[in-house]
Amino acid sequence: MQPYGMRIAAIQKQMMAQQVSHLILGPSANLFYLTGLSPMPDERLQLLVIPAQGEPALVLPELYRTMVEEAGGGWTLYTWGDGQPPEQALQKLLAGVTKAAVDEQLWAMHLLQLLPFLQSAQLVEASQVVGEVRMHKDSQELQLLKKAAELADAVVPWVIPQLHEGITEKQVAFLIERCMREAGAEGISFRPVVGFGPGSADPHHTASDLPLQKGQMVVMDFGCKWKGYCSDMTRTICFGKATPEMRQVYEIVLAANRAGFAAAKAGTPCEQVDAAARKVITDAGYGEYFIHRTGHGLGLDDHEETYIVAGNRRPLEEGLVFSIEPGIYLPGRFGVRIEDIAAMTPEGVWCLNECPRELIEVE
Amino acid sequence: MQPYGMRIAAIQKQMMAQQVSHLILGPSANLFYLTGLSPMPDERLQLLVIPAQGEPALVLPELYRTMVEEAGGGWTLYTWGDGQPPEQALQKLLAGVTKAAVDEQLWAMHLLQLLPFLQSAQLVEASQVVGEVRMHKDSQELQLLKKAAELADAVVPWVIPQLHEGITEKQVAFLIERCMREAGAEGISFRPVVGFGPGSADPHHTASDLPLQKGQMVVMDFGCKWKGYCSDMTRTICFGKATPEMRQVYEIVLAANRAGFAAAKAGTPCEQVDAAARKVITDAGYGEYFIHRTGHGLGLDDHEETYIVAGNRRPLEEGLVFSIEPGIYLPGRFGVRIEDIAAMTPEGVWCLNECPRELIEVE
Repeated sequence: MQPYGMRIAAIQKQMMAQQVSHLILGPSANLFYLTGLSPMPDERLQLLVIPAQGEPALVLPELYRTMVEEAGGGWTLYTWGDGQPPEQALQKLLAGVTKAAVDEQLWAMHLLQLLPFLQSAQLVEASQVVGEVRMHKDSQELQLLKKAAELADAVVPWVIPQLHEGITEKQVAFLIERCMREAGAEGISFRPVVGFGPGSADPHHTASDLPLQKGQMVVMDFGCKWKGYCSDMTRTICFGKATPEMRQVYEIVLAANRAGFAAAKAGTPCEQVDAAARKVITDAGYGEYFIHRTGHGLGLDDHEETYIVAGNRRPLEEGLVFSIEPGIYLPGRFGVRIEDIAAMTPEGVWCLNECPRELIEVE
Repeated sequence: MQPYGMRIAAIQKQMMAQQVSHLILGPSANLFYLTGLSPMPDERLQLLVIPAQGEPALVLPELYRTMVEEAGGGWTLYTWGDGQPPEQALQKLLAGVTKAAVDEQLWAMHLLQLLPFLQSAQLVEASQVVGEVRMHKDSQELQLLKKAAELADAVVPWVIPQLHEGITEKQVAFLIERCMREAGAEGISFRPVVGFGPGSADPHHTASDLPLQKGQMVVMDFGCKWKGYCSDMTRTICFGKATPEMRQVYEIVLAANRAGFAAAKAGTPCEQVDAAARKVITDAGYGEYFIHRTGHGLGLDDHEETYIVAGNRRPLEEGLVFSIEPGIYLPGRFGVRIEDIAAMTPEGVWCLNECPRELIEVE
C-alpha cells in the first residue's frame, strides 16, 4: 500500500481540517496518486470515494475486477455490470455527505449521476484537499520528473536534422512523439503543439498539414510521461536565417525565461515569478503580446496546482515544481515561447531541462 | 459553416421538442461536431453555449482567439485572460436557463464553476439532444469511419511478423499505434489494449512490461482517428500452437460475433443484437465469462450512443454505427474478444472491418 496509505492519511488530515466529509475521485491523476490505478475515463462510472475518516472504497465496472485484484491494494471494491448502475453502493458510500471535494476531471455525466446523492452537500474541487499534498513532490517524485524531462530533452536535437521544406506540422508532432516513446516514455503528457510561421503565433496551436517553409519560426511544445509523471518543455527555432526582429523577440523571451528563474526563490509569492518574467517583455514593448500566465504546476498532470499567475500569493517552497514559459505572439506573423520546468529544492531552484536555449537557425 | 449550421439547427429542434433551453458543451467530440474546433480539455474553461433559439456563443481563453479566427466560423466569441474568469459572459449567456443539457465530458471543475448560474435549472446529459443527431451518420461520415477502419485493418498483418518471445505488451501497443500513425491517422482513438496470456483475460487491460511467451493468447484492441472519426477493432491471435480449449473458446466467440451481425437488421431492437451474441456464448456454457455488453456506438467518440446492451429497446435504423464485440475471459488464464464495427445502411448491415477473423497461430 505504500506510499498510498501515507498519501491518503495526509489527504484525510486536510479533509478534517477543511470539514470535507467525502473526497470523490474519477479516473485521473488523483486516482493514480492514491491507488496506482490508471484506467481510462469513459462513459462507465469509475470512482474512488474517500471519507474523512475510515477506509477508501472503489466503485468500478465489473470488467475492471481483474485490474483491481492484480493491483492487490486491499480496497473495498463495489463492481457493477453493464446496464445495472451501482445505486446501492453510491447510497451507502455517500450517506451523510456534508461537503464533498470532487475530482476536477470527473466527467460531468458522472457528476450528474452523483448529484441526487449530494443534494444537501456543499461541493468543492478536489484540489482543495489533494492539491496541497500533490503539490509538494518528494525526492522520488522529483527523480521521476527529472527522467521525464530527460526524455524530452532529447527531442529537439533529434528532430532538427529531420526538418526539411515541406514537412508538415503534424509530421513533426509525430516525430516528437516517436522520439520520446521509442526512448521508453509511456506516452505523451499532452498533444504536442507544433506551429510553423503564423502557427507559431498561436500559443495552443493544433498541428496541421501546413508545410514548413524557409524562414519560418517553429514552436515545439511537448512532453511525455514516465511512470505517470509529466515533462513539458517548449523550444522555438528558426528554419533558415532569422530576421533581426525574430532574433530580437527571441532574446526578449529568453531573458524573460531567465528572469522568471532568477525570481524563483523560497518564500517568493508565485505571482512575483510571473511579474518578473512579464516585466522583461513589457519593458521591451511587447506586453500586449504575452497573452497567458507565466506557468503552471507539473506532476502527474501536465497542468496542476500551483499556477504562476497574477493574484497567486502562495509563497514558493520546497517540493514545488512548475513551468516558466513566457512567450510573445505576433498574430499572423510569428511567435516565440521558451519553457522550462523549475523545481524548488533545499539548494534553491533547479531547472529540470538541459536542452540548450540559444536560438538555433537550421540552414 | 456547413455542415455545422444544419447540425445546430437539427439539435435546436431537439432542444425545442424536449424543452431544453440551453446546450452547454466543453472541449469534446460534440464541440468538434458543431464547430470543427478541437481544443484539448484542461483547467481553463472552454464552452460552446447554444440556446434553443438564437445564435451559439463560444467562451474561450484569450489564447484560443487565433484558433477561432482562423476557423472563421463567425461565432460570437467571449474570451477571458488568465486569472480573470468570464463571469459576465456566463451571466449573459446563461440568463433564463430552465433546463440545461450538459456535455458528458465537460470536466467536473467546470460544471462546478457553472452551477451558480444553473441554480434553478434542471440538468440533463447533452446526449439527450445531441445523441439522436450524432447517432445517425450521413454518407460522408460513413466514408470517414470506413477510412479509419481501413487504417486499423492494416495493423494485425503488420504486427504479426514483428512478434517474438520477450516483446512486451507496451512495445506491441506502440507498434500498433505506429502502424496507424505512419499511415496517416491523426491519432489513436483510445489507448490500445494489449494483453498476453492472463492479461488477455482482462477486458480493459493496461499494456504492461510483461514479455510474450510461447503458447499465449494475444488480445489486441485498438483504433485510430481519421478527420475526427474513430475506428475500433479487436483481434485475438495465438502466439504458438493453440490448445484445444483455446481453439474452442475462439470458435465460440467468433460464432457469437457472427450471430451479432446476423441479428443486426433494421427494426431489430439493440438489445436483441446483444442477446443473439450472448446466446451463443451462454449456450456453450461460458455465459458467466462474457462480463460486458456486446457493443457501443462509434463515431467522433470511440464510445457513444447507442449501446448494444440488455434493456436498450431502440430499434436499429439507417445510419447507426456500432461495435459487436463478444468476448470470453477466463480469469488468470486467457481471454478472447473479436470486435468489428457494424454500420446500418439501406442495403442492410455493413461490416466496416475487413481484417480476417480466423484464428491465427503465429509459429
